Amino acid sequence: MATLPDLVSTDVAELTAAVCDVASVSGEEGTLADAIEAALAAHGHLEVLRDGDTVVARTRLGRDRRVVVAGHIDTVPVKDNLPTWRRTTADGTEELWGRGAVDMKGGVAVALHLAAALTAPRWDVTWVFYDHEEVEADLNGLGRLVRVHPDWVRGDLAVLGEPTAGGIEGGCNGTLRAEVRTTGRTAHSARAWRGENAIHKAAEVLARLSAYEAGEVEVDGLVYRESLGAVAVRGGIAMNMVPDECVVTVNYRFAPSRSTAGAEAHVREVFDGFDVTVTDLAGGARPGLDDPLVTGFVAAVTAVTGGVPGPKYGWTDVARFAELGVPAVNFGPGDPMLAHADDERVPVDQVRTCAAALRAWLAGEAPERGD
Amino acid sequence: MATLPDLVSTDVAELTAAVCDVASVSGEEGTLADAIEAALAAHGHLEVLRDGDTVVARTRLGRDRRVVVAGHIDTVPVKDNLPTWRRTTADGTEELWGRGAVDMKGGVAVALHLAAALTAPRWDVTWVFYDHEEVEADLNGLGRLVRVHPDWVRGDLAVLGEPTAGGIEGGCNGTLRAEVRTTGRTAHSARAWRGENAIHKAAEVLARLSAYEAGEVEVDGLVYRESLGAVAVRGGIAMNMVPDECVVTVNYRFAPSRSTAGAEAHVREVFDGFDVTVTDLAGGARPGLDDPLVTGFVAAVTAVTGGVPGPKYGWTDVARFAELGVPAVNFGPGDPMLAHADDERVPVDQVRTCAAALRAWLAGEAPERGD
Repeated sequence: MATLPDLVSTDVAELTAAVCDVASVSGEEGTLADAIEAALAAHGHLEVLRDGDTVVARTRLGRDRRVVVAGHIDTVPVKDNLPTWRRTTADGTEELWGRGAVDMKGGVAVALHLAAALTAPRWDVTWVFYDHEEVEADLNGLGRLVRVHPDWVRGDLAVLGEPTAGGIEGGCNGTLRAEVRTTGRTAHSARAWRGENAIHKAAEVLARLSAYEAGEVEVDGLVYRESLGAVAVRGGIAMNMVPDECVVTVNYRFAPSRSTAGAEAHVREVFDGFDVTVTDLAGGARPGLDDPLVTGFVAAVTAVTGGVPGPKYGWTDVARFAELGVPAVNFGPGDPMLAHADDERVPVDQVRTCAAALRAWLAGEAPERGD
Repeated sequence: MATLPDLVSTDVAELTAAVCDVASVSGEEGTLADAIEAALAAHGHLEVLRDGDTVVARTRLGRDRRVVVAGHIDTVPVKDNLPTWRRTTADGTEELWGRGAVDMKGGVAVALHLAAALTAPRWDVTWVFYDHEEVEADLNGLGRLVRVHPDWVRGDLAVLGEPTAGGIEGGCNGTLRAEVRTTGRTAHSARAWRGENAIHKAAEVLARLSAYEAGEVEVDGLVYRESLGAVAVRGGIAMNMVPDECVVTVNYRFAPSRSTAGAEAHVREVFDGFDVTVTDLAGGARPGLDDPLVTGFVAAVTAVTGGVPGPKYGWTDVARFAELGVPAVNFGPGDPMLAHADDERVPVDQVRTCAAALRAWLAGEAPERGD
């Protein structure tokens, strides 16, 4: 049983370290979820709900609008990078290093802190801390809530605390996964000429991937960069057998202006002549920066951070809200380029600035730097 | 506890079926080894020895020469092909179908029958029935005997009952396994351009394999066909990560005139520029058909079978004897092209002919067809 420090009085950067130090690789979020549930339950202005390893806390102030602030509590596997540690760079920036520092326990800590601290926010707020974001889409805790408890995630605007380096990122690319399969005929490898080697046939699949040039697509004023690459390859039966199957799994990230059908057609065209099976396909979300609710959020936050909105490359759960017709943006501490990297780290001041900006918007008060 | 039928009076094809029907996948040879030990112990002219699941039976007649007849009792996994069944082909050939029929319980049955039947062979004979041939080389039962009981396998000529379709196959190709590794830099696949895809780099490895043209090499009058191919490929960390490593495992089968160092140098040359790790390397064995002992064996056997010696492609334990300086050949029933195939089957007359030919040589008597 892990315990989190006091959510209100603890510095939010320190709170980030504490949240990171309770390891929560996808599928093993139980301990952290318990700690979050216990910490939030101590605050009487919140109704705390639980489903699996997802914890939801919400105010019931009768405001006419409700904001959803959501973040996933799982991480990719730990790679000798926990517990967290602090380092000061040559230019004096203090950083927090370790698994989850970027993706996305900084955002989780900001939400935990504000959930506890803001007893009377300007709008009703639903705080969502969910499981299984870093794995197959059908395990996603937010997706589960949408199916099982849709009222827990309803709102007029959603903010996802995914890493944006404190900037506002609108929309997101779509994502498609497909298996490109080659087949052959097995034989004992001592008489390899009797078989047909499926792995050798995959040479052309890899050659096309290697030569592929990804596009850049402008949507609602933001430029989305696409990509197509292998994420896995497997083939082989035994060390003395000619393999009769080889599967290259590819991941295509496509601009939100492209439909899912269009994305699939493109991948099938790239691998024309090969057996292609789409295993996972989720459309992107347009930036939505013309929505008045989003505009208000952008104005309040950029007043603190000084930034301008940009595109989100990664597919995020913003797209789940987009599907429900809820405008949604990404806003959180941490350089998204460092997400999943073994050396992920976040400048501690960035965590504090994000907390201050979000507080400014939710509380409608003038924040102090270093909140 | 399984029991084998009487080794002397039972038709050797029927005995093959009985030996097959006691399943003995590598690592699970105990039941069959027990049955073999019990069956041989009933014959007073044999000294029966046991080590693990290897059974050795030998005559001690004081002859001036000793022959070793050896065969492995394990098989690759059963694939819905036991118990055995008989089928007669359109051209009237009676076949025994099932796991082990080819590799190599026909040879085992021939040896069991002659071990029991030949109470006074022309030379002393050591009959070796060993375990763990179909798996990693360091588990091999014959290799274990060489280390632990070298006197059990000493002799002037060794005959391995591996499937040769009743022909004599001299020597064997060598085998080398190597991992060809490409490395890159991981990143989230949503921002693939930040990483370096190791799987894409393997395109060139597969292209070289695909274009590779294997040689044919003449050694002591026999032509050995070589091959080089992938037996496995693996790469990928997670479905949303740019992979930082890809490993292609290749298997090179090389003529016995090539040294192990020469084989390794060749593979390194083919994959020049890539990281190559040799994981398994065993030299071949020259045919040795100029050795007088082998010549005598060839003459006696081909007088019965009518065949001519050919090369052995697969690496077999002939090479273990070659290392000890003991000339060795492969001779046994069953089409080697069907070894490990789910539809392996042996013409029953071929089993009988092999028994007759081996008997002719060992007994120095005129055999009858259908012995």
